[in-house]
Amino acid sequence: MARIAILGATGYTALELLRILAMHPHAKVVAATTRQDSRPLISAIHPSLTGLYDLRCENLTPEEVGKGCDIAFCCLPHTASMEAVPQLLDAGCRVVDLSADYRLSDPGVYEQWYEHVHTDPTRLTTAVYGLPEIYESRIPGATLVANPGCYTSTSILALAPLLATDLIEPSGIIIDAKSGISGAGRTPKMSNLFSECNESVTAYSIGKHRHTPEIEQVLSDVGRSTVQVAFNPHLMPMDRGIFCSIYPRLRKASSQNELLNVFRSFYAGKPFVRVVDHMPATRDVSHTNFCDITVRFNRDQLVVFAAIDNLIKGASGVAVQNMNLMLGLDQRTGMLPC
Amino acid sequence: MARIAILGATGYTALELLRILAMHPHAKVVAATTRQDSRPLISAIHPSLTGLYDLRCENLTPEEVGKGCDIAFCCLPHTASMEAVPQLLDAGCRVVDLSADYRLSDPGVYEQWYEHVHTDPTRLTTAVYGLPEIYESRIPGATLVANPGCYTSTSILALAPLLATDLIEPSGIIIDAKSGISGAGRTPKMSNLFSECNESVTAYSIGKHRHTPEIEQVLSDVGRSTVQVAFNPHLMPMDRGIFCSIYPRLRKASSQNELLNVFRSFYAGKPFVRVVDHMPATRDVSHTNFCDITVRFNRDQLVVFAAIDNLIKGASGVAVQNMNLMLGLDQRTGMLPC
Amino acid sequence: MARIAILGATGYTALELLRILAMHPHAKVVAATTRQDSRPLISAIHPSLTGLYDLRCENLTPEEVGKGCDIAFCCLPHTASMEAVPQLLDAGCRVVDLSADYRLSDPGVYEQWYEHVHTDPTRLTTAVYGLPEIYESRIPGATLVANPGCYTSTSILALAPLLATDLIEPSGIIIDAKSGISGAGRTPKMSNLFSECNESVTAYSIGKHRHTPEIEQVLSDVGRSTVQVAFNPHLMPMDRGIFCSIYPRLRKASSQNELLNVFRSFYAGKPFVRVVDHMPATRDVSHTNFCDITVRFNRDQLVVFAAIDNLIKGASGVAVQNMNLMLGLDQRTGMLPC
Amino acid sequence: MARIAILGATGYTALELLRILAMHPHAKVVAATTRQDSRPLISAIHPSLTGLYDLRCENLTPEEVGKGCDIAFCCLPHTASMEAVPQLLDAGCRVVDLSADYRLSDPGVYEQWYEHVHTDPTRLTTAVYGLPEIYESRIPGATLVANPGCYTSTSILALAPLLATDLIEPSGIIIDAKSGISGAGRTPKMSNLFSECNESVTAYSIGKHRHTPEIEQVLSDVGRSTVQVAFNPHLMPMDRGIFCSIYPRLRKASSQNELLNVFRSFYAGKPFVRVVDHMPATRDVSHTNFCDITVRFNRDQLVVFAAIDNLIKGASGVAVQNMNLMLGLDQRTGMLPC
Repeated sequence: MARIAILGATGYTALELLRILAMHPHAKVVAATTRQDSRPLISAIHPSLTGLYDLRCENLTPEEVGKGCDIAFCCLPHTASMEAVPQLLDAGCRVVDLSADYRLSDPGVYEQWYEHVHTDPTRLTTAVYGLPEIYESRIPGATLVANPGCYTSTSILALAPLLATDLIEPSGIIIDAKSGISGAGRTPKMSNLFSECNESVTAYSIGKHRHTPEIEQVLSDVGRSTVQVAFNPHLMPMDRGIFCSIYPRLRKASSQNELLNVFRSFYAGKPFVRVVDHMPATRDVSHTNFCDITVRFNRDQLVVFAAIDNLIKGASGVAVQNMNLMLGLDQRTGMLPC
Repeated sequence: MARIAILGATGYTALELLRILAMHPHAKVVAATTRQDSRPLISAIHPSLTGLYDLRCENLTPEEVGKGCDIAFCCLPHTASMEAVPQLLDAGCRVVDLSADYRLSDPGVYEQWYEHVHTDPTRLTTAVYGLPEIYESRIPGATLVANPGCYTSTSILALAPLLATDLIEPSGIIIDAKSGISGAGRTPKMSNLFSECNESVTAYSIGKHRHTPEIEQVLSDVGRSTVQVAFNPHLMPMDRGIFCSIYPRLRKASSQNELLNVFRSFYAGKPFVRVVDHMPATRDVSHTNFCDITVRFNRDQLVVFAAIDNLIKGASGVAVQNMNLMLGLDQRTGMLPC
Repeated sequence: MARIAILGATGYTALELLRILAMHPHAKVVAATTRQDSRPLISAIHPSLTGLYDLRCENLTPEEVGKGCDIAFCCLPHTASMEAVPQLLDAGCRVVDLSADYRLSDPGVYEQWYEHVHTDPTRLTTAVYGLPEIYESRIPGATLVANPGCYTSTSILALAPLLATDLIEPSGIIIDAKSGISGAGRTPKMSNLFSECNESVTAYSIGKHRHTPEIEQVLSDVGRSTVQVAFNPHLMPMDRGIFCSIYPRLRKASSQNELLNVFRSFYAGKPFVRVVDHMPATRDVSHTNFCDITVRFNRDQLVVFAAIDNLIKGASGVAVQNMNLMLGLDQRTGMLPC
Repeated sequence: MARIAILGATGYTALELLRILAMHPHAKVVAATTRQDSRPLISAIHPSLTGLYDLRCENLTPEEVGKGCDIAFCCLPHTASMEAVPQLLDAGCRVVDLSADYRLSDPGVYEQWYEHVHTDPTRLTTAVYGLPEIYESRIPGATLVANPGCYTSTSILALAPLLATDLIEPSGIIIDAKSGISGAGRTPKMSNLFSECNESVTAYSIGKHRHTPEIEQVLSDVGRSTVQVAFNPHLMPMDRGIFCSIYPRLRKASSQNELLNVFRSFYAGKPFVRVVDHMPATRDVSHTNFCDITVRFNRDQLVVFAAIDNLIKGASGVAVQNMNLMLGLDQRTGMLPC
């Protein structure tokens, strides 16, 4: 039984981790941290977990955490993560970091988009980008896995097969992404209030969203040339789910069936990607680790559609998938029959 | 006081018409029709209107309706409308038709997209397309106004200034449109059930949506060349609202401010279009006849964002705006202070 | 044209006031206040009002406000209101106070429920409780109107006819109240986040909700004996609306029709109360100043059902209704045809 | 591995059964039926199950189904179920019936509430009411289990401890029940449309809801005297969840702590009932088989609050719990760690 710790246990990604791990046959959460000194029970922070955990959230140092666990999930905000991760690793555990701090391999790009100097730049080259459908072979041996962003995973999974096979132009790719509100986290802000979000659709951070360089880094790697996307995030009046409608330019004529076959080949043996004939919907992947993908032609314009649950495949589900690989388990363990 | 009739009074667009007209100072609803023979009170069909109308919905013929009113709003489904409209006109009233039947000037295009032979093709050339921001001068004298589709209005208003000034390429325009569920009407279908739509985002009718030729017809007229769009509709888990994110290709470099000024010039004196600096949201236009528009650059990619209430500016509000113009009134009457 | 000021213009009740007053034929908003010193345009705080107001929110003192207006709507939080109201009145304007500060006539009851000593207790006896369906005659001459709470209005309107006619026991009345989230205001709190509220129903403040003494005070006055209610508020995953299901004990057997007639008599000539045969729904009163009421028997148990829009009939609509009466206008002005 | 069949596989309860059983270690779905003759794949009916089942829904007779399975879940509508169940049992399988047909032991009561003569009345006395928290000992040996209604389970679980210990009066119990829309099923009706339900709260079937006799039958059994409830169902704008606020009359004074202890004793060893100090919320039990319960005093009035997921603990989760008991498994299997 692997001993698991969760740093920053009060948010939505921690809640989903705790939910999945409660049913996991080979992992047991032994520690959860918070900055509060009152040592609240996990069920006091997440009432839905009542009866599933008899554990308190404690104000532990990363060193204390790292000594007592095999794998630590770091659910801290960016910049806080890069302070904790080195201490966790030094204490001897392995880390799945859900923040953005170790996702970008170039500290200059990090600084440009996050407006913060990276304080642990040398580790950026050894961290493994934790998208198993792309980097599965590197994850089992990793000590530090950078768990991908939610928009990022969806966009990459929807484009990787087309870029890997040179079927589309690497630039001018338009991504119209639609997300539920939980992606904005559990910290109260006016923009996340029910009465601001309900019955409303809007766009935000056009040209400035921090998942952009992450998408481009991985897709450039997959496509072996510089990929550039116009990433346009939107907020939907729902709790969870991301739906991406992606408009790439084909290099030569193709058909829906040909392209679906390209996707099916690329994702053969990948249990969490479902290449489907029907149109995906966020409802179909809600509370699952699946990414559903299809393609359509609108006259000559290719459109790729992909849907995930932003808290599961976009965060905590893929984190457990990474953990499974790090532990030498079937990646489906605890999430799908295997 | 103009005498108003509503044909097909049981749906959502009729409800919104009845709501707006209840407060209108120069129009009075004198007849409402339904195929039911039980003569239900309007308040039995639309409980929210209790106390506002003391009128029964009757199974009247178009001829009966047309003889007793000055203007008839036709809220019938397509193909039913082209049967009723000639009779209404013959009976002497003027018509605002909310169906698609008189929107397309070419009966061949109608047949191609609606899979139905047009039975009143000669009138297609005399019907006026009822988007006042584009065709304001033609509406006051019209006897038959074809009220635009909801996606259509949003898309046209977001693109017309750029095409009229030759700032963008007329082809390859990508429209990513997001709509609330009320656009699908009040007829029960599994796809419109709360438990299918809630917490779900999906796309539909890619390459096949019937608002496509309508958008292209009007924009080709505005742009004086053949405009071609890739129109991609999506369903959002909300009742009302359309949000369009539009990706055109600029013909030469420009800036956000320059383009906002182009929009402001184009819509000067148009009370229901608000060109705004901030990002629109469907919530901001909900229950209003406004269309909010802005532009952004995502690196080099221009994006136009536009939001309306699909039942008001997308249907019944613009219908009243048309009625106002037909009656020689200020177009804002009953909807904005004037 | 009456000159109107709004103190505390950033919240949801102020937004609804501004919406209604934009279309009001005899009132003009001349001032709006905020504690921010940046003098934001109203449209910067409430983007939905773009184009409707060309007014800035200013950090004005109550004295400055009171000198320049005929009627001030005070949308400040409780305790802040009792500081501002005396200064407003001294400066010569009349006041509709939307806070709780002047609703309870007994300063001891105020202190007990609000845990704050009332600093303006003498004015409690002269303030008029602004529920026009009960106290219509007192409002036209009032200088200070205490606008009722949202749960309060619904509960009082649903029970007053039965208590005024001694048909029910004055004690042991169970009120099961269901409210949308906007009732909690626009200040960010974790409990108001979309991802906490959506897909969730819960109860809160059982036995402690501050609308309890207000309900009991007015109903005791109406019923001429001490009324005691068990008020149980619940949160619903919707933006706006209150639905009360009320379980009183009948003093003698009666029927649905007899009781509906009692309600119809009581509310004869009251344009904003609709006694209906069908079951009310919050949707039917949304964005209106109506209160819909019906009664049912569940075997022997009488149940009264009442629905309002918490922001309109529960706050800003009734505030305008009060303003209309204070100005000698038809109370429907600006909200219903009259 | 037990062989499982599902009759009536197209609705929401079948979907949830299929979801839970996909991860169940000791049960395998071998057949699913529909009246459609096109033999659709399960994933064509429920796209969310893509990849989890490689099974077609077939138009099988109950006899065919019964011969090939160990346990059949019958998700047919009432009256259809009482036709299929005898054939299933005759063919040799055991049955968990999710319809109402075998819940009421008195065929006269069934006829009174369902307006249909019961065609299989003799089996009513041998069917076991499948609420394991009350009838756990009878379920392992049962051949026919009548799975409880969703409102029913919530109401019974919230009241049984108080009636079993004679702490409350058996009559005059007011149940104010709030349900999500999925309880109304997947058959399109206007009342279930998104645009009718969203942003709306209403009540329905007051005094007429068919779960009433079921609640009273079981509680009368538990309380050893005739229990009578006033059951008042409401619809909430959410997909799933039931929240009951129950107002019983205490026989003698008690306290919140005393009563919570009564609940805790009663439910000791029942893994799916959580007696909590905090206020339950449907969100906390969503997608789980838990029922969360607490009590509060509103002055002298006792209030019991209980929340479940109507599709899980209110239907398919408890059905699997029953199946587990019938198979001699730990009742938590497939739903909780055990």
